[in-house]
Amino acid sequence: MQPRRLRIGVAGLGRAFSLMLPTFLADRRVELVAACDPRAEARQQFAKEFSASTYADVRELAADPNVEAIYIASPHQFHAAHTEIAAARGKHVLVEKPMALTLAECDQMIDACRQAGVALIVGHCHSFDTPYLETRRLVASGEFGAIKMIHALNFTDYLYRPRRPEELSTAEGGGAVFSQAAHQVDIVRLLVGSPARRLRATVGRWDAERPTEGAYSAIIWFECGAFASVSYSGYGHFDSDEWMGWIGEMGAAKSPDAYGGARRRLATLQSPEQEARLKAEGTYGGASYKPPSPERLSFCHQHFGPMIVSCERGDLRPMADSIIVYGDMCSERRPVDLPSVPRREVIDELYAAVLEKAPPIHDGEWARGTLEICLAMLKSNEKEKDIEL
Amino acid sequence: MQPRRLRIGVAGLGRAFSLMLPTFLADRRVELVAACDPRAEARQQFAKEFSASTYADVRELAADPNVEAIYIASPHQFHAAHTEIAAARGKHVLVEKPMALTLAECDQMIDACRQAGVALIVGHCHSFDTPYLETRRLVASGEFGAIKMIHALNFTDYLYRPRRPEELSTAEGGGAVFSQAAHQVDIVRLLVGSPARRLRATVGRWDAERPTEGAYSAIIWFECGAFASVSYSGYGHFDSDEWMGWIGEMGAAKSPDAYGGARRRLATLQSPEQEARLKAEGTYGGASYKPPSPERLSFCHQHFGPMIVSCERGDLRPMADSIIVYGDMCSERRPVDLPSVPRREVIDELYAAVLEKAPPIHDGEWARGTLEICLAMLKSNEKEKDIEL
Ligand SMILES: NC(=O)c1ccc[n+]([C@@H]2O[C@H](COP(=O)([O-])OP(=O)(O)OC[C@H]3O[C@@H](n4cnc5c(N)ncnc54)[C@H](O)[C@@H]3O)[C@@H](O)[C@H]2O)c1
Ligand SMILES: NC(=O)c1ccc[n+]([C@@H]2O[C@H](COP(=O)([O-])OP(=O)(O)OC[C@H]3O[C@@H](n4cnc5c(N)ncnc54)[C@H](O)[C@@H]3O)[C@@H](O)[C@H]2O)c1
Repeated sequence: MQPRRLRIGVAGLGRAFSLMLPTFLADRRVELVAACDPRAEARQQFAKEFSASTYADVRELAADPNVEAIYIASPHQFHAAHTEIAAARGKHVLVEKPMALTLAECDQMIDACRQAGVALIVGHCHSFDTPYLETRRLVASGEFGAIKMIHALNFTDYLYRPRRPEELSTAEGGGAVFSQAAHQVDIVRLLVGSPARRLRATVGRWDAERPTEGAYSAIIWFECGAFASVSYSGYGHFDSDEWMGWIGEMGAAKSPDAYGGARRRLATLQSPEQEARLKAEGTYGGASYKPPSPERLSFCHQHFGPMIVSCERGDLRPMADSIIVYGDMCSERRPVDLPSVPRREVIDELYAAVLEKAPPIHDGEWARGTLEICLAMLKSNEKEKDIEL
Repeated sequence: MQPRRLRIGVAGLGRAFSLMLPTFLADRRVELVAACDPRAEARQQFAKEFSASTYADVRELAADPNVEAIYIASPHQFHAAHTEIAAARGKHVLVEKPMALTLAECDQMIDACRQAGVALIVGHCHSFDTPYLETRRLVASGEFGAIKMIHALNFTDYLYRPRRPEELSTAEGGGAVFSQAAHQVDIVRLLVGSPARRLRATVGRWDAERPTEGAYSAIIWFECGAFASVSYSGYGHFDSDEWMGWIGEMGAAKSPDAYGGARRRLATLQSPEQEARLKAEGTYGGASYKPPSPERLSFCHQHFGPMIVSCERGDLRPMADSIIVYGDMCSERRPVDLPSVPRREVIDELYAAVLEKAPPIHDGEWARGTLEICLAMLKSNEKEKDIEL
């Protein structure tokens, strides 16, 4: 039986879109019918590839009667405005993380969607990844007693991937707290399953050429009594995917021999303009854009770095293809079904929300909670004290 | 040339002593000439093995004119008194970690040794381990720029090894903060090389049958601007030696198949008394004590779990046989000479302090600084706020 296809318009044909594209292509519950982007070359490629309408402005996209839901993958600072524009036209919204830059914006987005009666889902975020959802199920089952502690870390080359200038400015939503804690904190919240109440955080900014947060550490306390310690470095040195069986964030095998690639590529560039151009050229519609080819597709689940979930009677370790269960007397690897469609979990929630009115996990309130924590992390660092949530 | 042998008396022939015994046996700069322990069977074995004097009381040991230095390996709560007794008799002191239970005790110990003109060294602590000393050298060389962040974690079965009752009571110096943070914090301080100024910590106590700290997380800030996040779980589930190439804390290869051993052994016991008896029987002089045999000896350096030291231009990862250097463009493994004598670094400092009056790294002031942090960790957890140091 052919499922009814949800008709999606895309706002922003950049890197986030290209990461979701394999999902849109492979998941038969959705189809791409329109897009908007200020970059003409991106619109051209999209129009050609999908025989679809394209627009320079999100207002025109939102006015397209063929579009049922808009995937907002424009830069952070547009998420709030684009969501309101979409909702005002009765379109369901799937908006990229971070939801927005302020809690006031989140409130407006939630209100706008509620008033319009449209679904609001924030993602893709790595807390959609099946191994975390399965780990949450194990925690909630009570098999291992109450959850007590999470230890999460991730060492990546985040800061040295090609960036637009505002991605390196915290005031404009750049840096590891807005972009990366948004994933790590979201996963931890999902796993604990209880509201965060308080946190203490500190950030690292130690490359004057890329003067935003490249690293952070935080302790987060939850109402149920559990705490989480989360740490991140995007400075492109140690790579913690070693501790994920050399499966990278996107679920594909990774070679340790590729060490230093991001910095080496960056070292060939002369200016921030050249870097922004490189980013644009490598992205959808750009001269050097490479479409997702079968061998570049993932074969495991995506992930956001090593994580140990400590319960009273066992530690759980979500991996890209399994959950390792460290019980009192023995340990075992519980395999997780491998994905046929990457990130299909996003479509699961979107489709169910729109067609079955099923409340999504990653709704506006949920994502607002994650942003609240990210903002509190920056504040805790600045004020040098705990922040109550 | 035969080195002049430093004549050592031992106060406390328990597990700590048995861990130092291979060192005392193999390092020709020292010899064991006397010991004291309330346990007659330990005294008997010692007298037989070393044709040496034994005493029931530390005062008698301190009065022995043949003893030049006393290795104090009695339980925590006796460290201060035993140090003062040794110093009063002009004996140099090597005292086990943690140095004592209060800062006032540390001050008394430092004063007593200073007034007597004897050396005071606190150890073995894992910050003596060569890979950390070498990593410190690399940090101090400036090759990688300023140190910015340390991420340290250790997941062990600490809480489920056989214990005396007071080892499970925080008020008596039991638990992971006194016994295990004492190592982890000491290493981090050594690596940063700048005074700690502030910390925030939280602890986990989630086994009512062993009601002391089994876990903790802390963020520590240093004067130089670096911070460290340290986390520990001794709950016997995930084993982070997996991330140390399956080399265990004592430097020996470890089999993942031994999973759950500590808990399984403990499950056969009926009472705290039986557990204390098991500990005593397995220790020096006990019925089931096994002397260090060649195949049980370490072949790598000892360590205290995974640690990533982030500098401006590289991450350093001390391993049991090398330091992995993750530079800007490439990574390499820099081998460290393997130990001919385990823990010989302790004898290096002791011998130099006594015979060459060379100031040790791990002196009383140094170890007081580590205890200050451990105590502040407990206080931060209790008061739910930062503690200034
Ligand atoms: N979930 C993930 O894995 C993931 C990965 C990358 C980015 N993101 C998120 O996606 C968002 C975009 O980041 P990116 O890395 O794709 O950036 P990008 O620069 O690669 O792409 C942004 C795209 O939006 C277009 N754009 C700019 N202004 C616009 C406007 N007013 N209307 C419509 N389109 C506009 C740009 O031309 C570009 O094509 C960010 O919020 C980021 O956090 C998420
Ligand atoms: N550095 C390390 O790797 C390491 C390892 C284990 C223990 N330790 C430290 O060593 C100390 C002892 O711990 P342990 O695990 O060996 O305990 P243990 O119980 O195995 O040994 C203590 C020994 O001291 C003896 N003793 C008790 N009271 C005494 C007294 N008044 N005078 C002399 N001896 C006395 C006991 O009979 C026993 O033989 C602790 O402070 C601990 O933190 C250090």
